[in-house]
Amino acid sequence: MKRRIYYYDTDCGGVVYYGNYMKFLEEARTEYMEARGLSVKALMDGGVWFVVKRQEIEYKAPAVYGDVVETRTWVNETSAIRVQFAYEIKNQDGKIISKAVTDMVCVGPDFKIKEMPSDVRTRLQG
Amino acid sequence: MKRRIYYYDTDCGGVVYYGNYMKFLEEARTEYMEARGLSVKALMDGGVWFVVKRQEIEYKAPAVYGDVVETRTWVNETSAIRVQFAYEIKNQDGKIISKAVTDMVCVGPDFKIKEMPSDVRTRLQG
Amino acid sequence: MKRRIYYYDTDCGGVVYYGNYMKFLEEARTEYMEARGLSVKALMDGGVWFVVKRQEIEYKAPAVYGDVVETRTWVNETSAIRVQFAYEIKNQDGKIISKAVTDMVCVGPDFKIKEMPSDVRTRLQG
Amino acid sequence: MKRRIYYYDTDCGGVVYYGNYMKFLEEARTEYMEARGLSVKALMDGGVWFVVKRQEIEYKAPAVYGDVVETRTWVNETSAIRVQFAYEIKNQDGKIISKAVTDMVCVGPDFKIKEMPSDVRTRLQG
Repeated sequence: MKRRIYYYDTDCGGVVYYGNYMKFLEEARTEYMEARGLSVKALMDGGVWFVVKRQEIEYKAPAVYGDVVETRTWVNETSAIRVQFAYEIKNQDGKIISKAVTDMVCVGPDFKIKEMPSDVRTRLQG
Repeated sequence: MKRRIYYYDTDCGGVVYYGNYMKFLEEARTEYMEARGLSVKALMDGGVWFVVKRQEIEYKAPAVYGDVVETRTWVNETSAIRVQFAYEIKNQDGKIISKAVTDMVCVGPDFKIKEMPSDVRTRLQG
Repeated sequence: MKRRIYYYDTDCGGVVYYGNYMKFLEEARTEYMEARGLSVKALMDGGVWFVVKRQEIEYKAPAVYGDVVETRTWVNETSAIRVQFAYEIKNQDGKIISKAVTDMVCVGPDFKIKEMPSDVRTRLQG
Repeated sequence: MKRRIYYYDTDCGGVVYYGNYMKFLEEARTEYMEARGLSVKALMDGGVWFVVKRQEIEYKAPAVYGDVVETRTWVNETSAIRVQFAYEIKNQDGKIISKAVTDMVCVGPDFKIKEMPSDVRTRLQG
């Protein structure tokens, strides 16, 4: 998952705003899932939602306007109700910009925890 | 409606990102309505939604990190289904930063146009 | 310029937040310029900045989570110091979502108006 | 530090977007510092910048449109070059929405680590 850094990603310190990395992580998770046949939209329509329970992120080096960053995404572990995503973001020179981990929980549209369908869990691990 | 400019409002040009003014305008509209006894939340819960149909904004001078900007908001005109908001944003020195106009339309949760309740229209004009 | 609609683009009305279209427009302008050999980053480093003076946008139909929107971008006119971009955004079904116009002015890093290099103007028209 | 939840804070799941909490934390840090006589703007102008090195956040319950959330902010520890902020965010009913910790490092405008002035450290602890 590659994406260019735009003005709207940056702040007046000249670098990507620390909160905007959460958007890169969402993009990376979505593309990870789509590549495994899991459409977040179709899951939602079917009442299977994933919400973020915990987010941890380390900022190793700044990304700046005009950079093209690449996010590698993988799944660390899953349970019947949980999935943990991990990521490494590098810039166009191969320098590590950030490392992050997201814990997500499967819920229904009422935000109550529920088990994810077993094929969803299998695909997430894939 | 006063608000401080934060890092997240700015971009790497050192000034407030042009798209972030839309958030200031939403804040100003909301406070304008709340001050007239119109809760956007209560209206939504009652099936009365306002959606933006057209937005026009002029950028007169940049706002920078640490500024405190003040938005004056008024209603130019209303119809049974429309309301036009206008705004003037100044910084702490009284310098005009921006002027803007928003055309909104009343819709139901299905995004179909519908008439707004007459007391809502009256309060919007007030 | 195609891009998927993510969660972060949407609001609790279920559709893309009206202010987030400004980001799509920035992306589209940037890609328009890059395709004509104009790197915004290189221009900035050379002291040629473009700032938004006026933005107008009409919202024709909502875009929703999971949509893939495509923005067509062109330049309406240029002067020695100005360029006007126009855009049409469609969704994956060819439905027009939005039309917009952005007036930009060439400035130096001090935000004072200055003439753009003639080859920049030529490429913008191309 | 209280703030209303606006449309732009939410996503199509109907709740505050997980990445937008980073903005609430920035606001809360800024107000914490201002209340102790530390202007982030004045520090920046004096070459004392604080950048986020690590962010951890737990999401306990969703915040929704129209909520008014309150963030309690404190400093866990400081060193010559570091400061750790902690936060608890509650909604208007006193329900805990989120807990978070931010590790920041003092740098110069060149993003190289440097010691913070001792009175800054003292005020941060206050």
